[in-house]
Amino acid sequence: MKQQINVQGMTCEHCVKAVAEELSAVTGVTDVQINLVADGTSTVVVETDQTLTDEQIRAALSEAGGYQLV
Amino acid sequence: MKQQINVQGMTCEHCVKAVAEELSAVTGVTDVQINLVADGTSTVVVETDQTLTDEQIRAALSEAGGYQLV
Repeated sequence: MKQQINVQGMTCEHCVKAVAEELSAVTGVTDVQINLVADGTSTVVVETDQTLTDEQIRAALSEAGGYQLV
Repeated sequence: MKQQINVQGMTCEHCVKAVAEELSAVTGVTDVQINLVADGTSTVVVETDQTLTDEQIRAALSEAGGYQLV
């Protein structure tokens, strides 16, 4: 299934790469697509076998560099 | 000696890390200190045995992620 996540604090392609890597490492995630909005809320669409919990998402965003789930 | 470089386009700590790594790899550079200004011109102070040329600096900034020497 596809799950959309809204993320604040991503500003550049390094951020995109970091978030993609951390979310890709979560169990069940098979694809991550990110639409970077550098001065606002970026949208992330995760293809996953099982819906991610907010806790899983927050942990991945924090690990990637302190990004905020909104 | 210390050489100050003004750089545009850096937005986050990933950018800081990438620029520091590329400049540190230039011959003669022994230290790199970066003051990130995410919405403007960041200042980079390089400690180096020999003054870097604009070409060397531009090459490093490009490699780090397309940042601009100003």
